[in-house]
Amino acid sequence: MKKSVFYHAGCPVCVSAEHDIISLIGLDNVEIVHLGDNKERIAEAEKAGIQSVPALVTPTGNVLHINFGASMEEVKG
Amino acid sequence: MKKSVFYHAGCPVCVSAEHDIISLIGLDNVEIVHLGDNKERIAEAEKAGIQSVPALVTPTGNVLHINFGASMEEVKG
Repeated sequence: MKKSVFYHAGCPVCVSAEHDIISLIGLDNVEIVHLGDNKERIAEAEKAGIQSVPALVTPTGNVLHINFGASMEEVKG
Repeated sequence: MKKSVFYHAGCPVCVSAEHDIISLIGLDNVEIVHLGDNKERIAEAEKAGIQSVPALVTPTGNVLHINFGASMEEVKG
């Protein structure tokens, strides 16, 4: 199965959600991307439809915005 | 393992998220609660910390608000 991708930016809300997502769907099924450390992937995240982090892109391409940690504008800043 | 509980209210955003969550974590691992059809469970959802639907309560009791379908006030109305 194609992996989900979890985008975050290291904020407390992000870290908490990351633990929950890994616990729910398993570390093997999700790629974790820290956009603060990987700014070159911000464009890819925006193209996927991500407006805030943390967010999960499912294998089918749907975006699940989970709680609210930071806007993409804040991540770019 | 204790099940997660997915609360929704039948809105389009809720139904879409429901499909994604079931696909990600498996129908056996999540209880689906339609608060519009089960208004007696609204108090339980609020006690768990749910402010809007759709939302997932993890086995450890964390609340993941997923996208935004409706506020709890709208669900009560």
